[in-house]
Amino acid sequence: MVIEVDSAADPRIADFTRLRDTDLRKALEPEQGLFLAEGEKVIRRALATGHPLRSVLTTRKWLPSFADLPADAPVYLASDEVMENITGFQVHRGALASLHRLPLPAVPELLGRARRVLVLEDLVDHGNVGAIFRCAAALGVDAVVLAPRCADPLYRRAVKVSMGAVFAIPYARMPDWYGGLADLRLAGFQTLALTPDQHAPALDKVQFADRVALLLGSEGDGLSSHWLAEADQGVSIPMSPAAMALGVDSLNVVAAAAIACHALLR
Amino acid sequence: MVIEVDSAADPRIADFTRLRDTDLRKALEPEQGLFLAEGEKVIRRALATGHPLRSVLTTRKWLPSFADLPADAPVYLASDEVMENITGFQVHRGALASLHRLPLPAVPELLGRARRVLVLEDLVDHGNVGAIFRCAAALGVDAVVLAPRCADPLYRRAVKVSMGAVFAIPYARMPDWYGGLADLRLAGFQTLALTPDQHAPALDKVQFADRVALLLGSEGDGLSSHWLAEADQGVSIPMSPAAMALGVDSLNVVAAAAIACHALLR
Repeated sequence: MVIEVDSAADPRIADFTRLRDTDLRKALEPEQGLFLAEGEKVIRRALATGHPLRSVLTTRKWLPSFADLPADAPVYLASDEVMENITGFQVHRGALASLHRLPLPAVPELLGRARRVLVLEDLVDHGNVGAIFRCAAALGVDAVVLAPRCADPLYRRAVKVSMGAVFAIPYARMPDWYGGLADLRLAGFQTLALTPDQHAPALDKVQFADRVALLLGSEGDGLSSHWLAEADQGVSIPMSPAAMALGVDSLNVVAAAAIACHALLR
Repeated sequence: MVIEVDSAADPRIADFTRLRDTDLRKALEPEQGLFLAEGEKVIRRALATGHPLRSVLTTRKWLPSFADLPADAPVYLASDEVMENITGFQVHRGALASLHRLPLPAVPELLGRARRVLVLEDLVDHGNVGAIFRCAAALGVDAVVLAPRCADPLYRRAVKVSMGAVFAIPYARMPDWYGGLADLRLAGFQTLALTPDQHAPALDKVQFADRVALLLGSEGDGLSSHWLAEADQGVSIPMSPAAMALGVDSLNVVAAAAIACHALLR
């Protein structure tokens, strides 16, 4: 069902317009259970993983790509100008979709048969969360567990940076931070806390158990001391002593996650 | 020498104001041989590696941090409002410095005693270049060689994302792309081309020579077919077959570089 819209103020495309403001977006998304996907490829990955479509907003050029969508979902057709007006910038590959979230599994259910798991503590940057999901999915991590305050993987920027990998890898959010590692221990996971502390054994030298959960902390401060103490052991990525002398003494969290996932799947 | 400025239009701070526009910045920087560093820590790394200071622009709060700078370099003092006016956003840690570039070494000179080298072909994103320098420096890569069209490591965003690692690791730019690998071969480097092609041997299984150069391609298309053919061999990072079936079939270039640098230094 194609519907032309000629103004960004049209209430039928409110999913796309009122989500422009960061605070509104944060307030509305969890409440209404919606999220936005950008570009045909990512939209199709969201659909293929069972997320019910609410509507699509696109331009004439990209309209044919969406000819096969479920007939009951409106496809709003806008001019390039209206589209840019709505989003404040050029939309990647000319299409946005609004989709319904799916209920997340509980952590014990998520862990089920998983053997290699990432646990993200309080990452604040949605782009980093998206990039880590992309690494985790590409390298074969089975699942991701999020601390209560970790940034939302279905926030628009996270979805985009992940290239849709947030749909390819199952995840859950732990209800409680303080005792959050208990479910992992109960399920028999070895918990490894990634730390910049060069006294911790190198990740490549650690003997992995059958089930391994790797804990990653926030961008600035890394893991909380509580989780560092709760984990079975700390693990590190060896840094160059010459670089450390020059003050280059850490990796960004995405680079660290990439190296850690690769080591985990060795 | 502290000089108060009360307007963004003051010609004495033109280094900071006219560099606001992307095109101007691109046009002016190479010609005048300047670059900008942001935040005390990064500014100090630039100074410590011998880059002559032209001027600093800061606010009252951060002024004491710069009390020990060379007396002949002007420190322009602006209000928070003027500062934000100039840069269009909040400046990270309240200080910008304008510095002179140093002449880059020729490639053969750079390669000198280096044993582990990254070669970046046509990366376009300055943030990615900065992030790769940070990985390379932290993990102990000895030097970076840039293809003629690779994005500039001293562009403001690259400097910032690298956290100053662009000053910690020596680099050079090859004068010619087509024959660009000749200097590496002459210096006895094994040239390994990183490719998403899963038929190429895994990086972890490759026998490294005494001197190894790892080639990384651009964000979208990876390495050119010319360089892929010219390199001694292609190498890959193994991807999860399950993720590939879901269309998650590659890593972003920073994640790939992090894993590759880590493997290279094993």
